[in-house]
Amino acid sequence: MSESHQPYLEAAIEEARRSLAQGGIPIGAVLVYQGKIIGRGHNQRVQKGSSILHAEMDALENAGRQQAKVYEQSILYTTLSPCPMCSGAILLYKIPHVVIGENQTFMGEESLLTSRGIKLEVLQNKECITMMRHFIAQDRTLWNEDIGE
Amino acid sequence: MSESHQPYLEAAIEEARRSLAQGGIPIGAVLVYQGKIIGRGHNQRVQKGSSILHAEMDALENAGRQQAKVYEQSILYTTLSPCPMCSGAILLYKIPHVVIGENQTFMGEESLLTSRGIKLEVLQNKECITMMRHFIAQDRTLWNEDIGE
Repeated sequence: MSESHQPYLEAAIEEARRSLAQGGIPIGAVLVYQGKIIGRGHNQRVQKGSSILHAEMDALENAGRQQAKVYEQSILYTTLSPCPMCSGAILLYKIPHVVIGENQTFMGEESLLTSRGIKLEVLQNKECITMMRHFIAQDRTLWNEDIGE
Repeated sequence: MSESHQPYLEAAIEEARRSLAQGGIPIGAVLVYQGKIIGRGHNQRVQKGSSILHAEMDALENAGRQQAKVYEQSILYTTLSPCPMCSGAILLYKIPHVVIGENQTFMGEESLLTSRGIKLEVLQNKECITMMRHFIAQDRTLWNEDIGE
């Protein structure tokens, strides 16, 4: 992994671990602008009974209202390949670069994002994969709910 | 307009009016399952300082956690053509049918939705168009923020 990505992916993983410790779905994300984390979050389906607060959405929400130019110079780090909703948010705000922990347990809308010119880097991080594999094996029903299956 | 759509679009318009009266962006939405509104909402950028609570997202959030089969038998009514984020949410939850108040003031990801088999009906409702035209003319900066421009 590029050294420059390491602390930000680590922060996203920390969010995923926090969610897991709360009994939630272990997916985390951070939004980084000019080297600084301006929003961080994790899946809130269990914790807040939310159908829309996937990790990426929670990080965007926690970043607050931003002007277009901020998103357009930001990098989004997420522990898991972004689903259609989160991919749509990336397209809405024209976030040009997404760093993805892994896409082995779930493949999101990577083809759509790439076709629209978004730069994706998939790191296949072992901790991200292990956390998701373990979670899905333990609670397939909850996971299916989160991805509309 | 099909008579069956009328009360639901009216409910979405009522949400838009409510948002306008609160100083917010006049876009509303309702999620309808088996003829019953199970979630309703409006844009919350101003009211909650939210970057993700577009009307459709607010309606989905207010519907609470639902199983896949509920979304797959629902109709989403929205006063405005859905942006990439809201279109992504529609794809995530496989909502098969979206009724759109108008797409003259903003064209969302209708082509993407149609290409994925979602049924769209665009009603070009006069009140929806008038509310948005007036709002955009009055606060172009706020509108641009909401659509990532």
